[in-house]
Amino acid sequence: MYEGLIQDLIDELGRLPGIGPKSAQRIAFFIVQDEHYDPSRLATILAAVREHVHFCSVCGNLTEQEQCSVCTDPRRDRSVICVVEEPKDVAAIERTHEYHGLYHVLGGAISPIDGIGPEQLRITSLMPRLADGTVKEIIIATDPNLEGEATATYLARQLGYLDVKVTRLASGLPVGGDLEYADEVTLGRAFEGRRAI
Amino acid sequence: MYEGLIQDLIDELGRLPGIGPKSAQRIAFFIVQDEHYDPSRLATILAAVREHVHFCSVCGNLTEQEQCSVCTDPRRDRSVICVVEEPKDVAAIERTHEYHGLYHVLGGAISPIDGIGPEQLRITSLMPRLADGTVKEIIIATDPNLEGEATATYLARQLGYLDVKVTRLASGLPVGGDLEYADEVTLGRAFEGRRAI
Repeated sequence: MYEGLIQDLIDELGRLPGIGPKSAQRIAFFIVQDEHYDPSRLATILAAVREHVHFCSVCGNLTEQEQCSVCTDPRRDRSVICVVEEPKDVAAIERTHEYHGLYHVLGGAISPIDGIGPEQLRITSLMPRLADGTVKEIIIATDPNLEGEATATYLARQLGYLDVKVTRLASGLPVGGDLEYADEVTLGRAFEGRRAI
Repeated sequence: MYEGLIQDLIDELGRLPGIGPKSAQRIAFFIVQDEHYDPSRLATILAAVREHVHFCSVCGNLTEQEQCSVCTDPRRDRSVICVVEEPKDVAAIERTHEYHGLYHVLGGAISPIDGIGPEQLRITSLMPRLADGTVKEIIIATDPNLEGEATATYLARQLGYLDVKVTRLASGLPVGGDLEYADEVTLGRAFEGRRAI
């Protein structure tokens, strides 16, 4: 539809997740035409990002160093490891400011349909981290869906042989939510996990 | 929240129109992690696009040549010029395959609130195109909103002194739409512009 580079730009933008043809076109025209926007900055970052960003050698989080900022922070509590699926889950938990331990990023969840078994995840590298007895608790914080639950069950079984407490994040009603609109499974979990007040 | 380049990438993606913080984060992680995606292609295009894409010297459409592919196409009908606001409007009209004339891209619409008057638009360059008498009709295809109507009225007045037919795209019910859901103004226009069948 468009000429050369503009169509190339629309096509490449359309490959990004959540950007449909209309959005790609809108963004492309913004990039080409907006006088306050400098596309060379994004170009420079895109060219550098794959070279400099990689997985932390300890926990699997994304970092530009050999180890990530959590793993190298001396103030973090080294007796607890929170296991998550993706680097963005680390960011979500850090935003709560409630957790001060370490992380372990699996790189996904067990999903037979997508051909992802335990061996595709960063599970074997978790075991050596528990060897010296520093870690007392593993908090499994995989997503509360089918794949996340399967992964949590698998991990709990693997870790059952070790002298470490294994916990799972609580399921229940989201804070600020409306009981009436909660789905049956969530409401069931909220009853199951009810606490004395 | 994130380290160095990842945060830079999220920030830069967030500057694009229609991309909020959540989308920017999602896209950034895709760019960093997806093994089938090569960010260097978008990087190369972004670095080149401002240098190579500019406005057609005749009509104001975007092109990588001195003149755009419509202006240089010998098969186009040179007796009619369709005046639009933006390059994306040219693409929208081309998609209909109904129009075979030339274009003139104003680069916006008259909008006193945004400080855009006729002198900010590509209007003076339209007049020389009518000088040799080849052009018999000007179709004003600015958007059917306040700014577009104001621009159409202004242009019609300017062109009134010249020996050229000035027309405006029809307003009315969108095809495939539902009469019940049409707004009053659109429905009013549909009555006004009714045709014998």
